[in-house]
Amino acid sequence: MATIKDVAREAGVSVATVSRVINKSPKTSESSINAVTNAMSKLGYRPNAAARALVSQSTNTVGVLVGDVSDPFFGTLVKAVDNVAHEHGKHLLISNGYHRAEEERNAIELLINNRCEALVIHSKGLSDEELIGYAQEVKGMVIINRHIPQLAERCISLDNRKGAYLATEYLIQQGHIKIACIASSHDIEDASDRVAGYLAALSDHDISLSSNDVEHNEYIEYNEPNSEGGEVAMTRLIAQSLEITGVVAYNDYMASGALSVLDEHGIKVPEQVSMMGFDDGLIARYVHPRLTTVRYPIQMMADKAARLALALARSESVEPEAIVFSPTLVRRNSVASVQ
Amino acid sequence: MATIKDVAREAGVSVATVSRVINKSPKTSESSINAVTNAMSKLGYRPNAAARALVSQSTNTVGVLVGDVSDPFFGTLVKAVDNVAHEHGKHLLISNGYHRAEEERNAIELLINNRCEALVIHSKGLSDEELIGYAQEVKGMVIINRHIPQLAERCISLDNRKGAYLATEYLIQQGHIKIACIASSHDIEDASDRVAGYLAALSDHDISLSSNDVEHNEYIEYNEPNSEGGEVAMTRLIAQSLEITGVVAYNDYMASGALSVLDEHGIKVPEQVSMMGFDDGLIARYVHPRLTTVRYPIQMMADKAARLALALARSESVEPEAIVFSPTLVRRNSVASVQ
Repeated sequence: MATIKDVAREAGVSVATVSRVINKSPKTSESSINAVTNAMSKLGYRPNAAARALVSQSTNTVGVLVGDVSDPFFGTLVKAVDNVAHEHGKHLLISNGYHRAEEERNAIELLINNRCEALVIHSKGLSDEELIGYAQEVKGMVIINRHIPQLAERCISLDNRKGAYLATEYLIQQGHIKIACIASSHDIEDASDRVAGYLAALSDHDISLSSNDVEHNEYIEYNEPNSEGGEVAMTRLIAQSLEITGVVAYNDYMASGALSVLDEHGIKVPEQVSMMGFDDGLIARYVHPRLTTVRYPIQMMADKAARLALALARSESVEPEAIVFSPTLVRRNSVASVQ
Repeated sequence: MATIKDVAREAGVSVATVSRVINKSPKTSESSINAVTNAMSKLGYRPNAAARALVSQSTNTVGVLVGDVSDPFFGTLVKAVDNVAHEHGKHLLISNGYHRAEEERNAIELLINNRCEALVIHSKGLSDEELIGYAQEVKGMVIINRHIPQLAERCISLDNRKGAYLATEYLIQQGHIKIACIASSHDIEDASDRVAGYLAALSDHDISLSSNDVEHNEYIEYNEPNSEGGEVAMTRLIAQSLEITGVVAYNDYMASGALSVLDEHGIKVPEQVSMMGFDDGLIARYVHPRLTTVRYPIQMMADKAARLALALARSESVEPEAIVFSPTLVRRNSVASVQ
């Protein structure tokens, strides 16, 4: 890590001047401020981290960025990282990014400034470039649930396309042909990958439901990836009288919303319509009927991410490999075969 | 806050010696280490915080301690605090304590060392005395979901007894008499308060189901406060052939487990047995039938706690008042009147 002396040398000023700039002293000139700021940026020097380094280099802290801890999916992720941290005698700092670039950036800066040497980052808002920048700065940073080719060895991701393919193919194996897709309207890879998996499974089994134009496929309904979004999407599918017998939902929440609407319309699940969820989250076992779904192994993935981050932070040699997890099918009670 | 100079003066050594002790330099004598350690402890001096204070006194960080963020109840708490923090331009640091003293202590130390000036603390493991000690050290610390008389003005709690009383009384109003209680086996106030509320409602309506000995009341089944615990408890109640028509559960998870067991036994809810939950958490709306439950206003409580913590941290005058929230009834589909 760069020291205040390195910054002074790079900026061509004294250590005292660097200190004055950091402390926003009124006695500093514009040119000193610019020179020091540029030098700090160039050297990746962080005043807080440096101040802390006066005391100790070791932090014993693992940082986690998630979308929103009030979602049990992220809660499970955080808990898995916490378990690994505890096993290594480390503490955990958690921050929410809400999938928004500005919030994610603030959260990562906060974690770095709090001297987290190992970071598990779930980011959907920041660009690949920005994440690569942070990864260069923090050697113990691992990305979860996203694949960045230049950081492949530090990315733990899920094959989302395969998950939706599995879900769709399972319905096809049960004799379903008119299979609808309730998709997420969010502009993230997970959403497009899952629609692609659904379409690929249909295509591989020579099922042609609509024109090939995804934008105008009436069997695909996009909405918010929550229960309410699932309700709206299912209502719209019913309204079109498409004679659907199976539905592949983006996640368990959307599936549960769709189940409510089917129930309200007196349409029996799984006798008349089969429903596939995605995630195998908390609610999959609570809805009625219990959801047949695709398991997102977030606990295993977060465990792996935390161990990798700690190993990288300790500069241990880690076998370079891209780590893509596979979803698996969980059979419960929401799918039946077509008679 | 005490400075390194204060520590040196108190210990009767030089600032350089204090610095050597803090940095665990091998050149320090046993007597210096003892003198400095005692002085730091007496003055509440934290080396990390001090090092950071070299740069800035302001932290912009709110700390939250919860039991386990993977439980949506705590997720909701954390999100509410985060919303208030954002509104005030602050960041959030979150730590898990798992209701264990050692973990909670480590977590609070970590948050304080990371210069969180405002703290929202959900602690079930630490003693009142220890929490009072931390509260004296951190003026912006607020306790949530617990009432400590000496800290009454900084405690945000729920009237758990009233919640269970409401739930039980509602069943009585629907004509139920043989009402069982599925209770938590955890040794925390929430558990005993809710059993007390159940018993008080029965007693106030002159219903006597068992001996007055709570330990041997066959209508009360204690188990882990989760879905599995609810399954075991309900199974044990059914096995006793008590002709129960209503059940008051410790929380929605236990209620949902009980619902599964009733379903497996072909006992219809609410036609044959009515079920009351507690919390109105995420799953209450997903189980079948949707749970009639008691609302735990954790979002409002966490919002209030965060605002109070920030006001106290800014030394704003806060009107002294004990803040005890009231639970309310949420009517859905799991309760029917007795014919």
